[in-house]
Amino acid sequence: MSIKVSVLGSKGKMGSEVVKAINQAQDLELVASIDQNESFDLVKNSGSSVAVDFTTPDSVMKNIELLITSGISPIVGTTGIDDKKLEIIRKLSLDHGNIPVRVVPNFSVGAILMMRFAKMATKFYDSVEIIEYHHAQKVDSPSGTAVRTAKLIAQERKENNLKENPDATISEIPGSRGSKIDGIPVHAVRMQGLVAHQEVIFGSSGENLTIRHDSFDRASFMPGVLLAIRNINKVPGLTIGIDDLIK
Amino acid sequence: MSIKVSVLGSKGKMGSEVVKAINQAQDLELVASIDQNESFDLVKNSGSSVAVDFTTPDSVMKNIELLITSGISPIVGTTGIDDKKLEIIRKLSLDHGNIPVRVVPNFSVGAILMMRFAKMATKFYDSVEIIEYHHAQKVDSPSGTAVRTAKLIAQERKENNLKENPDATISEIPGSRGSKIDGIPVHAVRMQGLVAHQEVIFGSSGENLTIRHDSFDRASFMPGVLLAIRNINKVPGLTIGIDDLIK
Amino acid sequence: MSIKVSVLGSKGKMGSEVVKAINQAQDLELVASIDQNESFDLVKNSGSSVAVDFTTPDSVMKNIELLITSGISPIVGTTGIDDKKLEIIRKLSLDHGNIPVRVVPNFSVGAILMMRFAKMATKFYDSVEIIEYHHAQKVDSPSGTAVRTAKLIAQERKENNLKENPDATISEIPGSRGSKIDGIPVHAVRMQGLVAHQEVIFGSSGENLTIRHDSFDRASFMPGVLLAIRNINKVPGLTIGIDDLIK
Amino acid sequence: MSIKVSVLGSKGKMGSEVVKAINQAQDLELVASIDQNESFDLVKNSGSSVAVDFTTPDSVMKNIELLITSGISPIVGTTGIDDKKLEIIRKLSLDHGNIPVRVVPNFSVGAILMMRFAKMATKFYDSVEIIEYHHAQKVDSPSGTAVRTAKLIAQERKENNLKENPDATISEIPGSRGSKIDGIPVHAVRMQGLVAHQEVIFGSSGENLTIRHDSFDRASFMPGVLLAIRNINKVPGLTIGIDDLIK
Repeated sequence: MSIKVSVLGSKGKMGSEVVKAINQAQDLELVASIDQNESFDLVKNSGSSVAVDFTTPDSVMKNIELLITSGISPIVGTTGIDDKKLEIIRKLSLDHGNIPVRVVPNFSVGAILMMRFAKMATKFYDSVEIIEYHHAQKVDSPSGTAVRTAKLIAQERKENNLKENPDATISEIPGSRGSKIDGIPVHAVRMQGLVAHQEVIFGSSGENLTIRHDSFDRASFMPGVLLAIRNINKVPGLTIGIDDLIK
Repeated sequence: MSIKVSVLGSKGKMGSEVVKAINQAQDLELVASIDQNESFDLVKNSGSSVAVDFTTPDSVMKNIELLITSGISPIVGTTGIDDKKLEIIRKLSLDHGNIPVRVVPNFSVGAILMMRFAKMATKFYDSVEIIEYHHAQKVDSPSGTAVRTAKLIAQERKENNLKENPDATISEIPGSRGSKIDGIPVHAVRMQGLVAHQEVIFGSSGENLTIRHDSFDRASFMPGVLLAIRNINKVPGLTIGIDDLIK
Repeated sequence: MSIKVSVLGSKGKMGSEVVKAINQAQDLELVASIDQNESFDLVKNSGSSVAVDFTTPDSVMKNIELLITSGISPIVGTTGIDDKKLEIIRKLSLDHGNIPVRVVPNFSVGAILMMRFAKMATKFYDSVEIIEYHHAQKVDSPSGTAVRTAKLIAQERKENNLKENPDATISEIPGSRGSKIDGIPVHAVRMQGLVAHQEVIFGSSGENLTIRHDSFDRASFMPGVLLAIRNINKVPGLTIGIDDLIK
Repeated sequence: MSIKVSVLGSKGKMGSEVVKAINQAQDLELVASIDQNESFDLVKNSGSSVAVDFTTPDSVMKNIELLITSGISPIVGTTGIDDKKLEIIRKLSLDHGNIPVRVVPNFSVGAILMMRFAKMATKFYDSVEIIEYHHAQKVDSPSGTAVRTAKLIAQERKENNLKENPDATISEIPGSRGSKIDGIPVHAVRMQGLVAHQEVIFGSSGENLTIRHDSFDRASFMPGVLLAIRNINKVPGLTIGIDDLIK
């Protein structure tokens, strides 16, 4: 029996990809898809047990409330959900029988694996640096994923009592050694032609280990979205991310 | 209190690196180091509890026997130990109170992490290929590490019921698509200037994940050798490799 | 004054990109664009001096004839034009006042630079290999660009009396050392997620030089198309490729 | 007939490599090699027509004078020769029949090709950034080669009226976007295990071109040294670098 799914924000860049991915999945059934100015009743009356929201920061909290009170589990890819909003969502779920909710900052399985492997490799290497590469239209530098990766690594180095990266630099043209995120050098390249790429490079005497993730297309997020849908009932209450499902 | 260590084959390329690494480690004490034509008694009477053997396929089995009967745990990096010889070693250990012995085909922590991460990533990707790069003097192609990696990945794909790599090739100049090791394409580059490098590339719709290991120098094997020495008493009997120590 | 351009095959994947690129170029004016079942008269009467053809192998020769007899210079990106057809085109041009015609197998400026640099680097290195990476739907292996690059390099090595790539391989699992195109090893990776990429790697004692081209999108061919349009009158008669315009 | 060569600083890291390289070259004859505390007379009376100097900034100017006044052409790899010293050398040569002298900041043929190709590619791309990677003991950041490459590219962009790299960054953690050398972003990685590597990455819509040079070993400088020796008589007076010989 297939899982009945709704999509909110179905005409947006991500939403339309989700619609396509659900339609191609034999074990999922798209029972409602709405975009702005379309009634939530279409979702409410669709019989769906789970709904994917890729709408806007302005509308997402209202959508989550409507979904939870309708007994539909939200999977939220919309950005702009801070800690305060997470608390509201957690409470909403608790008040409704601990209904499963997922708020997912990054649906890329590959990015999650990259971070996981980076964390695992950390304690075996003296040196580590991160280089991320993005298209020239990106407004923040470095990327959120690079910052998260650096923090993860820094935390892991601390727990393993590693010393700082060895670095003999005494004469530096400012910026050349990158930004330091909790002590980890992070370099950001912005360039026409690039999409979204990240390299974590580890080094110790005589060797390097490099973990690189290249994302060329929104299609790359769909396996993560489908994973969240298929496993929505595994964990009651609010869950952040899909890391626990990737094993 | 430091661990007393002997080195057999102490003047060879690897052995001399091991001597250097032990001398630099504060918790280890080099109590004997012999090369060919030097008496094993130097090791026997050294008080060492563990000995690293980087000698030759011709002498290694005799060395192992001498070490075990002297109550010294062998850590063996010498090549040419096949399954039959492993059985002899296993029995030797069993007959001597299950004394710890390690036979280690690859001391590179980075290569082991590469294989481990490759295995972990396998089930999330449709496609995977391996490219290894070595110096022009290498006689076997592909490398043993590449073959082992391919077999690991093939096994993991089988256990997860993955289909074959998608590949629409209908017109191929022979060899261009690589060798197939249990179905996994493996490409080998041989070139002046290179040392020892391997890339495992995974792909699914819109994304790639690449795990690359570069080995420039024998020094890169020393952390693995030291790890084996420091943990020799953790596991009784014969152990293959150092994977269990990398965690 | 702007150049008046027509596009044949204007609704195809490449043709529609060309239409977009011309519309964005301030010095070019799109005066006619036709697809199948639309009359060539639209082009003939448009006042265009140059026309870009991205149609099909079946219709391209007829189009070229119509364009030349109408006094319009063809720029041809359509595939399937062999040496015999090239002779016909050359004669057609000659019979019509040596009107400029370009038949272009590859509009990618980056791919042309990669080949040019590879040729220039050849004589300084003992070793060279080519790795090309493409999406899993590609039917030929290796790619035409990889074969052309290998032939260029082989010719250059011959002219400089270079010996064969050093290669000590004595035990090979067939295919691992790639296909040999005029003696140059060429490896082809086919993978979900990839688009079109090529690496030429050179090696001599203690160093490597790598030239890599990544093509993510048809947009990458447009600078080459615009270059051909803007310079169509520079060379009378038939010209193959756009290499002469990239300087 | 072979060229008679002397080496000054023959026991240093570079000098001893030069001795080895000359001994392996059939067309060159090593007639004298001295290190500190050895008499220059050995060189003077050796019959050598050319001498390679890899000594120290303190002794190099005296050596050059001794060589020139002895009628021996100096090829100088020693560092620390600034513009003022170059003027002194130029005059010394002029006063001695315009004897050929080469002062060479970088003997790496690969690094020179990388810079040359980067310059040639510049005008075809909207974006360009440089990433250099070196061992953790390096004191300056970025490397001299990276700075020279950036300046070359910046000059070439200016001459071709290219606009600045497109970059939409509005929120930057300082340093993440690298140092700007004449407007070109340059990133420097410092890491255990690395030797000396540089990547120049170009991008325009839908494509990237990457030129990478990896230097693993001092051996990589020897082809450049031999090239300078073999061609010393081609150019009278002072010449900087070996770029003119690489063609």
